[in-house]
Amino acid sequence: MLKDKLIKEFAAAVGPANVLTSEVDRQAYSYDAAVLPSVMPALVVRPESSQALGRAIHLCGQNGLPITVRGSGTNLSGGTIPDKRDGVVILTNALNKILEINEEDLYAVVQPGVITAKFAAAVAARGLFYPPDPGSQAVSTLGGNVAENAGGLRGLKYGVTKDYVMGLTFFDTNGDLVKSGAKTVKCVTGLNLTGLMVGSEGTLGVFNEIILKLIPPPQTQRAMMVVFDQVAQASETVAAIIAHKIVPVTLEFLDNFTIRAVEDFSRAGLPVTAAALLLIEVDGHPAQVAEEADQVAELCRQMGASLVQVAGSAEERNKVWEARRAALSALARRKPTTVLEDATVPRSKIPAMIRVIEDVARKYGLTIGTFGHAGDGNLHPTILTDRRDKAEWAKVELAIDDIFEAALNLGGTLSGEHGIGLAKAKYLERETSKATIFYSRSLKRALDPQYILNPGKIIGE
Amino acid sequence: MLKDKLIKEFAAAVGPANVLTSEVDRQAYSYDAAVLPSVMPALVVRPESSQALGRAIHLCGQNGLPITVRGSGTNLSGGTIPDKRDGVVILTNALNKILEINEEDLYAVVQPGVITAKFAAAVAARGLFYPPDPGSQAVSTLGGNVAENAGGLRGLKYGVTKDYVMGLTFFDTNGDLVKSGAKTVKCVTGLNLTGLMVGSEGTLGVFNEIILKLIPPPQTQRAMMVVFDQVAQASETVAAIIAHKIVPVTLEFLDNFTIRAVEDFSRAGLPVTAAALLLIEVDGHPAQVAEEADQVAELCRQMGASLVQVAGSAEERNKVWEARRAALSALARRKPTTVLEDATVPRSKIPAMIRVIEDVARKYGLTIGTFGHAGDGNLHPTILTDRRDKAEWAKVELAIDDIFEAALNLGGTLSGEHGIGLAKAKYLERETSKATIFYSRSLKRALDPQYILNPGKIIGE
Repeated sequence: MLKDKLIKEFAAAVGPANVLTSEVDRQAYSYDAAVLPSVMPALVVRPESSQALGRAIHLCGQNGLPITVRGSGTNLSGGTIPDKRDGVVILTNALNKILEINEEDLYAVVQPGVITAKFAAAVAARGLFYPPDPGSQAVSTLGGNVAENAGGLRGLKYGVTKDYVMGLTFFDTNGDLVKSGAKTVKCVTGLNLTGLMVGSEGTLGVFNEIILKLIPPPQTQRAMMVVFDQVAQASETVAAIIAHKIVPVTLEFLDNFTIRAVEDFSRAGLPVTAAALLLIEVDGHPAQVAEEADQVAELCRQMGASLVQVAGSAEERNKVWEARRAALSALARRKPTTVLEDATVPRSKIPAMIRVIEDVARKYGLTIGTFGHAGDGNLHPTILTDRRDKAEWAKVELAIDDIFEAALNLGGTLSGEHGIGLAKAKYLERETSKATIFYSRSLKRALDPQYILNPGKIIGE
Repeated sequence: MLKDKLIKEFAAAVGPANVLTSEVDRQAYSYDAAVLPSVMPALVVRPESSQALGRAIHLCGQNGLPITVRGSGTNLSGGTIPDKRDGVVILTNALNKILEINEEDLYAVVQPGVITAKFAAAVAARGLFYPPDPGSQAVSTLGGNVAENAGGLRGLKYGVTKDYVMGLTFFDTNGDLVKSGAKTVKCVTGLNLTGLMVGSEGTLGVFNEIILKLIPPPQTQRAMMVVFDQVAQASETVAAIIAHKIVPVTLEFLDNFTIRAVEDFSRAGLPVTAAALLLIEVDGHPAQVAEEADQVAELCRQMGASLVQVAGSAEERNKVWEARRAALSALARRKPTTVLEDATVPRSKIPAMIRVIEDVARKYGLTIGTFGHAGDGNLHPTILTDRRDKAEWAKVELAIDDIFEAALNLGGTLSGEHGIGLAKAKYLERETSKATIFYSRSLKRALDPQYILNPGKIIGE
């Protein structure tokens, strides 16, 4: 527990109502969406201004208190779990202002606590488009998205969060403000600290304001649901579409287990006997959309699709995407513990990766539903289990190891969009090198000599 | 001078034919395209393999020798000028292999010494597209482009080099290999060292291999030359086009002085009495291109253009872009010294920035030709002078100060695409903050404790 005197200093920094010390409050911020042990923070603070945020960080720095910044806690790799040594959780939910949406220069400036979907809607209301759409967008924050370099369904055509961060200011451990990037399309002023901060999971600084790139929206889009009787047909279709130089906005895969779970959950009218579904959307100029939709449909048929159902209305289109967005919730209902993985491979390796996941499920007798962003090579094999069943959990851990090993052997990566956090730090050297870990730790040590910025995340202790 | 023993060790590391010690050779690598004093390196080495590169770096590290990596030396901010203390120049021109172009997964792997235009052509021959096209692309290298985060004419629609770097391996000062990023669209494994390395101007590591993103090419494009009798009409048209949610690939500006210089040089048939030209190209699906070209032409007329000339053939289109690409050479012939600046502002501030440049030219009695990527807010005011004329040079330095000050006051940045290098290091704090310099220097010190990676660049001594 922190001393009363120190708690009073935090109260002076952020206002007494914004310092939470009760066990119930601290409990609420002790975990995130990853399947990992919770850790109680010593203190939770909720700054309401940039100045209050800087003061809170300065106090943590002065007293060597580990800082874990928390948006909505949707993190899937333990990045928002506080530190054991008197951890301080800094909530960003009162730093939720959209400071500027600039239609002439196509950028916005936001505070880190703005909810992703609210921001996208505000931008859309001004006739512009912010493409990144992580699965948790309805509750996730932009600060969290930047800290994790969040992906989403539109990554294939539009890229991920990192592709939209033009600049930011962040606090160092003294509570001083560092500035990087600009409101201009081109900026090479200083080291690319903006690039370094994206995906740094709170380990190198605390975001103050973020400049995000906006683009004009596509004029129209067309979605379709494609049914396959064999998984291999579906996965090979993904590669075939790209090989034909068509880049859909979204190209999602659902296996039979996931289809049945979604149908049980949402009664959306999905074909429960299908081996796999692809949900595809193209967007752009109406003429291009019409052509590409026809080409994709034709390709799917050539690859053996048993049904290609093109959405004829906005309502039908919404139905397609609601089914996809329900996948995780639908699977999560089945068992007490849901392990959502995101090992990622070059997209041409999707057929091989799906075979591996099927083999792994058989080998360990586990239930794995697989869905995800097939167009990015970013699948989410989702293991349904019960953390309390020690024998099965041991198998789950082995299965995860096998999945990572396979992804790396296929030229892929440990994490496409969920982050390394606490969950995958131990695997990092396997993908990179000893020198990479050494380089990263040297960098961390220099920028955070007291090791108080979200310790243990990404590069371990 | 280095000791003979050490030179022999370099010869063993990279091969005797690849160690250059003569004064003539060293002279050749003592300067780059920036207007800055040259510095003779102690040694020039030319590794022919990844292994040889690693060994050369290891030797430099062991002996505390400053390393300046050099592609084609087209750098405009002094980033390729060697260090005074026994600097070693490492040439990348023998590390010029395209290791892979992957059509299924839309990426390529290259060594740093590959020439940009050769790479773009090799990619195009495979039916794909690598958009970044810096002005120096015919001679510049991809390693140099990544080190400087090079821009180009297509930045407005397609972004800059940083938007195409998916991952890389680089040597640390021990000659050990650090790995970051992946061949997948999505990758959040480890700190985003790839982002940090882009634009780091050789100060944090030496590139070994680079993974670049490729995209399908646009189906077609249309270029047009638009003539204005008043500069303000041209600059306001730039903002009007974007405000209409049209994002051309390229949207270039040439002032009257530049137009006349180009016409003198190339006899391309440019309208020498025009106050300003806009050169505009839209690309994409044929239907979209036709519509957008019509809309842009109509907008230009509404904004007061006296002539809109749409290129009717590939030949006419080439003529438009040859005129633009000739701008720098045409200006450079006029006076012994060409100072090419790239202060950049949000694009809606282009009219204000052009007025500032005109005022500065008048105030100091200097000849400034202005052209550049107006759509990005990235202008190149080009001061034509004679470095030996001390009185005029003093005015040039004051003029540059004024231009930077104005760009920052307009919400812009010191450098859009030329880098900070030696030339602008002293201005960095003005745009950022003391804490930014401190943060950047801490990072540098940790990753390069001997201060041998291109010392003095970006963050000063």
